[in-house]
Amino acid sequence: MNLESTILLTDLYELTMLQGYFHAGMNETAVFEFFVRKLPKNRNFLLVAGVEQALAFLESAHFEPEEIDWLATQGFRRESLEKLRDFRFQGDVHAMPEGTLCFPEEPILRITAPIPQAQLFESRIMNLLHFQTMIASKAARSVLVAPGKELVDFGLRRAHGAEAGLYAARAAFLAGFSATATVLAGKLFEIPLSGTMAHSFIQAHDSEEEAFLRFAEANPDRAVFLVDTYDTEEAVRKLVALTPRLEERGIRPLAVRLDSGDLGAHARRVRRILDDAGLRRVGIFASGNLTEERLQELVGTGAPIDGFGIGTSLDTSSDAPYLDCVYKLEEYAGRPRRKRSEGKATWPGRKQVFRRYDADGRIVSDLVALEGEDHPGEPLLVPVLRDGKRLSPPEPLRVARDRAARGLASLPSDLRGLSPAAAPYPVRFSTKLEALRSALDRS
Amino acid sequence: MNLESTILLTDLYELTMLQGYFHAGMNETAVFEFFVRKLPKNRNFLLVAGVEQALAFLESAHFEPEEIDWLATQGFRRESLEKLRDFRFQGDVHAMPEGTLCFPEEPILRITAPIPQAQLFESRIMNLLHFQTMIASKAARSVLVAPGKELVDFGLRRAHGAEAGLYAARAAFLAGFSATATVLAGKLFEIPLSGTMAHSFIQAHDSEEEAFLRFAEANPDRAVFLVDTYDTEEAVRKLVALTPRLEERGIRPLAVRLDSGDLGAHARRVRRILDDAGLRRVGIFASGNLTEERLQELVGTGAPIDGFGIGTSLDTSSDAPYLDCVYKLEEYAGRPRRKRSEGKATWPGRKQVFRRYDADGRIVSDLVALEGEDHPGEPLLVPVLRDGKRLSPPEPLRVARDRAARGLASLPSDLRGLSPAAAPYPVRFSTKLEALRSALDRS
Repeated sequence: MNLESTILLTDLYELTMLQGYFHAGMNETAVFEFFVRKLPKNRNFLLVAGVEQALAFLESAHFEPEEIDWLATQGFRRESLEKLRDFRFQGDVHAMPEGTLCFPEEPILRITAPIPQAQLFESRIMNLLHFQTMIASKAARSVLVAPGKELVDFGLRRAHGAEAGLYAARAAFLAGFSATATVLAGKLFEIPLSGTMAHSFIQAHDSEEEAFLRFAEANPDRAVFLVDTYDTEEAVRKLVALTPRLEERGIRPLAVRLDSGDLGAHARRVRRILDDAGLRRVGIFASGNLTEERLQELVGTGAPIDGFGIGTSLDTSSDAPYLDCVYKLEEYAGRPRRKRSEGKATWPGRKQVFRRYDADGRIVSDLVALEGEDHPGEPLLVPVLRDGKRLSPPEPLRVARDRAARGLASLPSDLRGLSPAAAPYPVRFSTKLEALRSALDRS
Repeated sequence: MNLESTILLTDLYELTMLQGYFHAGMNETAVFEFFVRKLPKNRNFLLVAGVEQALAFLESAHFEPEEIDWLATQGFRRESLEKLRDFRFQGDVHAMPEGTLCFPEEPILRITAPIPQAQLFESRIMNLLHFQTMIASKAARSVLVAPGKELVDFGLRRAHGAEAGLYAARAAFLAGFSATATVLAGKLFEIPLSGTMAHSFIQAHDSEEEAFLRFAEANPDRAVFLVDTYDTEEAVRKLVALTPRLEERGIRPLAVRLDSGDLGAHARRVRRILDDAGLRRVGIFASGNLTEERLQELVGTGAPIDGFGIGTSLDTSSDAPYLDCVYKLEEYAGRPRRKRSEGKATWPGRKQVFRRYDADGRIVSDLVALEGEDHPGEPLLVPVLRDGKRLSPPEPLRVARDRAARGLASLPSDLRGLSPAAAPYPVRFSTKLEALRSALDRS
């Protein structure tokens, strides 16, 4: 199956609504905006990611003849299905560039298109933007608490399926991670790869020395040794004893990996063993159920650890495995629209976000306004697709990564911590937007 | 990209270890077992799912020439890469059938193959088994607290990517859900589809009546109406007034959907309005941030709701977004192996699980023993692949679903609740297995 371009990766109601729009001849321009309603409790900001995949989907999404035949078996009308044969997205898209900091109620992506098109892509657009934005925002927390450390995504095995593993690697790299262990993500997104060996490799050999030697001979440029299979410090002493034989073969041990027990205490003991043996350049890499809280603790207590492998907590965003995000109709046929459901009311109209910075380059406040309003600050939404075509080629991932780094550097100190800030970042609404909302409520 | 069969969907260390095995000429038989170390705190049992996808992957996984060329750019040796050209899984697999109840420390799937093969598939096998088992186990909780209710998976938009959305639909159906909203999952897995309309459809029309009428005309067999866009009870009164016109057109309103506010209170008021109008056969369907706890409360207080749409909490398993699962080497070259890392020690050897039932068909206790031991009870692991080939054709999903239903019916009452049981289900270990573990610890 081709998950990148099949429109059947959608909710049934998108298709029944489509049939409704076709039946009623409704084809006027609709404006939908994707945004996050509120932050999870442990987040002070979000980092936009997944826009590139959303755009690629909009550009390529179509129905295969075989899919249309199948829909016919599901009770869809022949005249609706005929319209799907050359159904393509031909609308406009505005979006915050990947790596942009964002906050609740701010449109991250806006689609302007005939309503059948703007409606139909809802499910997959949300699925793509939600996941990567969630992971980039999660990864940024580790990046903030462990500056200068090598951070590697280790999460494929417990990511929620293949795409989650791949896009988690991408979003984490965008947020500032150094590398991923997921080979296909390295290939697809040009992310540096990192990896060592598993316990099974050690266990399959009769001794740790033998396992270390054979691994290093076969992978001379990746000589990182897992040392916790039986006894961590003992394994490091074996490595020290083995080092002259490795060096004879031109192999330089790069690092050891700790994966269990008290990582800080082991790291200190291991560092001493290595240093006493003159192996100061051999690094210490740690993994094993790590979270950003644990990273902060290890870094804060000065544990001599050079890099961290973070898996499950990163790839599942385990403390906040979803964002309260939505894709809402804000305008149809030139008229602003507003949903008033209890607790779920929305801001109507096409919107823009203006961000202000202080003299030191820190972000100060955002203003959500109607498109066309003029306000000081940086407008965050930019046009990216017009009439279904990209306005510029796909942005290299490293450009988005640099933008994210600048964004993280612009965070005021109270938003940089792992705990909720005393006061949320100020997101205000323009007078015109407030007035429009009130006017719709009275109508 | 073809995510179903590319071995590059793996961790780098699987490939560096492979190179190590090749280099050392290690090709003897290895036995790896996949199991869950412990249950998340809100789970009293797990339901096995994802075995079918794991087997399909093992059968089809291979390296494309273009992938091998790419690996050459990543520093892999030419002689290793040559061996990958016709690399195929040719080993044996034993597994618990999908829909089987399972508990910690019990092998769910066992791979017996030359060590390079058994090692290489680790990452994706875990990725596939972990996710669906987690989701089936999550879905079973809703099935248990809402017997007789229609339960529909609504989670695609906040599932972690495409595959998560598709496999969540499959795992939830396997666990007893009635349907999914995800169209492609319906097509791929023959799951009934269910869906209504979004708020945007209502908002795009000038009035709710008009939206209801047009939707029903276009979808006469799917006349379910979303009633909470503005005022829930008012919308239901509009639908009542509209019903004669619908019936003139041969359309029978099937249900209304509530999506916000106090669902129980709205359901009672809506039920009364519908009943007073003689529309007793029009059902009430509810959605909106539902969890199994909320379902239990609504069902327990007798809210007149016939079905529930459950999205985010289901597809992300939000209260427990991962399982502590592993894939461990238990035997190599005929010798049992045991990992002794702190807090992560494993049970060695090839294992079988025997399950005992009481006279009423309730499960009583499980015994984990070494393969070949003879014990009373049902042996849960069965051979499924031999020499890389299936022993029987893929099992229809409905067969696994029936097995899950029988499994859930066999749960003793203290394991059926949403809260942790006072005592966990008893999983014991045979004397021979205990003796083997002790012997390895002394060696």
